[in-house]
Amino acid sequence: MRKMKNVDEFRAEREELNRLVLARAGKEMKRFFNVDAGVYRDGALPAKVKELLGLVSSLALRCDDCVAYHLMRCREEGVTDGELEEALAVGLVVGGSVTMPHLRRAFRMWEELKSDAGA
Amino acid sequence: MRKMKNVDEFRAEREELNRLVLARAGKEMKRFFNVDAGVYRDGALPAKVKELLGLVSSLALRCDDCVAYHLMRCREEGVTDGELEEALAVGLVVGGSVTMPHLRRAFRMWEELKSDAGA
Amino acid sequence: MRKMKNVDEFRAEREELNRLVLARAGKEMKRFFNVDAGVYRDGALPAKVKELLGLVSSLALRCDDCVAYHLMRCREEGVTDGELEEALAVGLVVGGSVTMPHLRRAFRMWEELKSDAGA
Amino acid sequence: MRKMKNVDEFRAEREELNRLVLARAGKEMKRFFNVDAGVYRDGALPAKVKELLGLVSSLALRCDDCVAYHLMRCREEGVTDGELEEALAVGLVVGGSVTMPHLRRAFRMWEELKSDAGA
Amino acid sequence: MRKMKNVDEFRAEREELNRLVLARAGKEMKRFFNVDAGVYRDGALPAKVKELLGLVSSLALRCDDCVAYHLMRCREEGVTDGELEEALAVGLVVGGSVTMPHLRRAFRMWEELKSDAGA
Amino acid sequence: MRKMKNVDEFRAEREELNRLVLARAGKEMKRFFNVDAGVYRDGALPAKVKELLGLVSSLALRCDDCVAYHLMRCREEGVTDGELEEALAVGLVVGGSVTMPHLRRAFRMWEELKSDAGA
Repeated sequence: MRKMKNVDEFRAEREELNRLVLARAGKEMKRFFNVDAGVYRDGALPAKVKELLGLVSSLALRCDDCVAYHLMRCREEGVTDGELEEALAVGLVVGGSVTMPHLRRAFRMWEELKSDAGA
Repeated sequence: MRKMKNVDEFRAEREELNRLVLARAGKEMKRFFNVDAGVYRDGALPAKVKELLGLVSSLALRCDDCVAYHLMRCREEGVTDGELEEALAVGLVVGGSVTMPHLRRAFRMWEELKSDAGA
Repeated sequence: MRKMKNVDEFRAEREELNRLVLARAGKEMKRFFNVDAGVYRDGALPAKVKELLGLVSSLALRCDDCVAYHLMRCREEGVTDGELEEALAVGLVVGGSVTMPHLRRAFRMWEELKSDAGA
Repeated sequence: MRKMKNVDEFRAEREELNRLVLARAGKEMKRFFNVDAGVYRDGALPAKVKELLGLVSSLALRCDDCVAYHLMRCREEGVTDGELEEALAVGLVVGGSVTMPHLRRAFRMWEELKSDAGA
Repeated sequence: MRKMKNVDEFRAEREELNRLVLARAGKEMKRFFNVDAGVYRDGALPAKVKELLGLVSSLALRCDDCVAYHLMRCREEGVTDGELEEALAVGLVVGGSVTMPHLRRAFRMWEELKSDAGA
Repeated sequence: MRKMKNVDEFRAEREELNRLVLARAGKEMKRFFNVDAGVYRDGALPAKVKELLGLVSSLALRCDDCVAYHLMRCREEGVTDGELEEALAVGLVVGGSVTMPHLRRAFRMWEELKSDAGA
């Protein structure tokens, strides 16, 4: 029921709004944004696995924008089609059929990300 | 805050994306889709009651696309206006006022489904 | 990870706490409790179907106490084993594997309710 | 991933759909709408604090339309920029990074509400 | 369906586990705990209002331990019975009847907190 | 607010209830259980990563029993303390402070699992 923005539009709007949030944010909100960036960095677990963790928990919690963001990052980290499908299957089973609309949009965005890269 | 696609557009997009998902899905994901179809078939409970169960739990979990799909199926199963209203009232009370935006869109789609049928 | 109280204990605690809540509740909270009772009464849909709607949406939202209450009411409304299993299957598929611990406890309580009735 | 309607469009659609819902609603659903209005009225807590409670719990539950509605009411109740930011920070921490897309849209709508008022 | 620990037991277990978590936590997890403490401090909004925000969003998200913690803090901040009831009423309406088991336990704990203070 | 069963008790109860569920389950429910087992098997992603995906999404969705089960499996798959902490940090940030009670219990169970293995 919701028009998907294409990848470039998504990126642009996300960056514009992040600028607005950070201009308005107080100390604690800014620190939250830093922690949110920090937990996905390479460590005992590689960034690729952490992005998959972010992706699957976002799917289970049914957050389209979060799924979209982690899909972009998964693509950058070299996640393959097979790895993506298996990760999404975990999220689908954990979160149930209410995740299916988000799953559909996730596969569509993945196709867009792949065709972008090929361009 | 979200433009509702009309019924035909919703159906077309859903089918197109289902084709994409099934083209990319592995064995377990495909089996999940089969189980998801299976639980709504006539059995000890009639399909009509099962669609109402799917509708109300989708409303309580606040999934617009799931609500839209079960509304279409409820219409096909002959759910009346009075039955629909009472089922949605259960979902509203169980899930609280955060379901109200979805309730509003559900009533709008029901009107569209009825005017389609009358056309 | 959570000890299940038996049916009698559950009933007794629920009633005791309802008395406390109603003694402390203001006008709007009391009205909410009345609406909550009202939506499950016979109408265009029979009470039995409405209790199944309450049960399945409670399972999908993973509320043990709500599931327990609707199981007691389903038993009173004459829901059969087969009907119960099919309703819970809808809740499981809609809500995913995170509902499984609640599903397990639901089947256990149903057995207790049946053995109570046979006593 | 979702186009935000501007404030006037949001208000108009909300009112139109509320008319539809109330035309279709039965007794219990109507009473729910009354209780929903009642809990935000001045009492032991001022309406302003209650609107902040509605706003933050809506953010934590990730309901865009609910957030938008309470933002309009917060503006009417004289909530300042600083108060808003601190309230949203609580919602962000309670609900986690999955609330961030809603937080972004909340700040954008707040800017729109302020520029409306200045017009 | 869940045995409530009394207030002292709750406090003791919470502190013991916090020590365990902080002994095991890495840098980002520790920073999250700091941000979580920071957002409830006096600022543009007084700590009392922020604790009510934490309480109501915890009720709406149905987290018993979070509700218990914020009830203790609300008591320390001088929240009255009337203020508490009205705040919980907002949470009940926003989150729906699935919050009712948590609402019942919240009122019981509030009574315990009051009798503790009177001792 | 909830007494944690120790690891052996958790395992025993889980197995006993699984037997009950499977004795009562119809065809679709049984298939769901099979799909649930299938998505965690080695494939394009190793079982270890899949268990971390199950763990983090269970934490984000706040399901204690699911977290406990995936912790046992993570231990069997050789997840280290450092990997566990970083995975849980992702779940904490994604799901917010309402996951903290579950995070506390997760660390306690991990300690129990390690001391079991050392026995």
